[in-house]
Amino acid sequence: MKYGYGVDLGGTTVKMGLFAQSGELLDKWEIDTDTTGGGVNIPTDIGKSILADMNKHSFDKEDYLGVGIGVPGQVWPDGAADAVNLGWKRFPLIGTLQDITGLRCVGDNDANTAAMGEYWQGGGKGYQSLVLITLGTGVGGGIILDGRCLQGAHRAGGEIGHLPVNPTETRVCGCGNRGCLEQYASATGCARLAMDALAGSDEPSTLRSARKVDARAVWDAAKAGDALAVRVAEQFCQILARGIATVTATVDPQVVVIGGGVSRAGQLLIDMTQRHYRRYAFNACKDTPIVLAKLGNDAGMYGCMANLL
Amino acid sequence: MKYGYGVDLGGTTVKMGLFAQSGELLDKWEIDTDTTGGGVNIPTDIGKSILADMNKHSFDKEDYLGVGIGVPGQVWPDGAADAVNLGWKRFPLIGTLQDITGLRCVGDNDANTAAMGEYWQGGGKGYQSLVLITLGTGVGGGIILDGRCLQGAHRAGGEIGHLPVNPTETRVCGCGNRGCLEQYASATGCARLAMDALAGSDEPSTLRSARKVDARAVWDAAKAGDALAVRVAEQFCQILARGIATVTATVDPQVVVIGGGVSRAGQLLIDMTQRHYRRYAFNACKDTPIVLAKLGNDAGMYGCMANLL
Repeated sequence: MKYGYGVDLGGTTVKMGLFAQSGELLDKWEIDTDTTGGGVNIPTDIGKSILADMNKHSFDKEDYLGVGIGVPGQVWPDGAADAVNLGWKRFPLIGTLQDITGLRCVGDNDANTAAMGEYWQGGGKGYQSLVLITLGTGVGGGIILDGRCLQGAHRAGGEIGHLPVNPTETRVCGCGNRGCLEQYASATGCARLAMDALAGSDEPSTLRSARKVDARAVWDAAKAGDALAVRVAEQFCQILARGIATVTATVDPQVVVIGGGVSRAGQLLIDMTQRHYRRYAFNACKDTPIVLAKLGNDAGMYGCMANLL
Repeated sequence: MKYGYGVDLGGTTVKMGLFAQSGELLDKWEIDTDTTGGGVNIPTDIGKSILADMNKHSFDKEDYLGVGIGVPGQVWPDGAADAVNLGWKRFPLIGTLQDITGLRCVGDNDANTAAMGEYWQGGGKGYQSLVLITLGTGVGGGIILDGRCLQGAHRAGGEIGHLPVNPTETRVCGCGNRGCLEQYASATGCARLAMDALAGSDEPSTLRSARKVDARAVWDAAKAGDALAVRVAEQFCQILARGIATVTATVDPQVVVIGGGVSRAGQLLIDMTQRHYRRYAFNACKDTPIVLAKLGNDAGMYGCMANLL
């Protein structure tokens, strides 16, 4: 049996896990992300934490497959990393981490590692190809084909959040375009759909007395039968389903996995989305399963470990 | 030097080519497609034609890489082929062709072989990844990543014609859905956009006196400066560009190649599409080149040969 470290580097914390190559997460812990000084201390902090963990175990160095790391940005083939939120531009991440730990290190974008994690041990386990769609503050995506992540020529493979789904949108997306999937099918988008619905009528709704009209409030109200919230949820799923139908007609994966904060809405979200999806999907793909992600915030760590295999 | 045969099987003719592995098309010819009797004679006709050609040359059997064939349908891993227009359902294509020719045979869908051809020796030559979009009666597509065709779990990889681009469409696409890219960005779609524009106003246009309002007439009139035709052409390119932006945000190829009958409109089509594309494309992909296919009707033959390499 071999072992490895999966390291999911975020803007505030670093999630770290010790894995067996069989897929078992043996231990996990977090350290703070030190973004001071242009994030220059991050590899040292991670490396020290790994060395400390290695000291707790009696494995030989040869028992370790290495360290996989996921970054909120890009890791280039030469090991340099870009990550705006960390202050990294061509930062020598992989080399530094290798020097400190003495282990082989591999890095990738965190949306890709999450997809890889769900592919390896999560909602996509047992499938050969998968699209992960992460419904969070924005919409992220990752595509795994035959066990490999589709990176893309400009590292934009799986940028599903920026599919142009609405040519008549006037509001601007964070990316600068108008009508991106992310403007509707994210937590932010869900709240905005609800605010628009509330502003557009006097229809009574429990959402009118909600402390905060966010995605969670919308889905809770929908589950409780609030008619306006149900309509917003349907609208959310309809737009998401069109996005999914676009992706399946392009890469035709065996399964579509839905993760991210909004996916905590659970099976209702899946059922509504699947129903709309069947209407938009190309014939051969109408039965493509749409399932919930299983690994939650650990998906990235799992994927980082999977990248070592 | 090794040699091989590329065979592009269509509903009325079979295009056949003898290639050198370097990419040179040494000879090409056509035979009729005999669809009588459920297309049962097709492999024999193709096989005989190949044997006759082999007799004309003094190559050894070992000099041949084999026969690649493209089919208007699916070729499954076991060599059976489905092709509605030929009357084939689980037809033993590859085995039969191998038995007759004594050569190794490999088959694939004809949209995929066209993409492979443009990748190998056409508009995508020199790139590592490509999306081919074929604007014909319908809209076809093929995706090549790292030299391999993206088949998809249900053989629907690259089914770009059926991207859902218009949720408000009431007319039904040939696939049964509504609002597919093919309903606008095909030759048929182009003619319909023009008919709708002509019916929607009394604006003078040379198209009103055209013998037939087809895609060619629209583009010819647009090139001659007819204002209504220019608007139709812009509308066509705008919808196509949105479809392309969707595909590039998903698979992020190095190049997008436009083929098919409508692509004979040439550089004007490319320039208009590229202009609209920049508005819809995800930032990292805004400069992805959109280029014309180069191999015309020979693309499939080239791709069939490429599949032997």
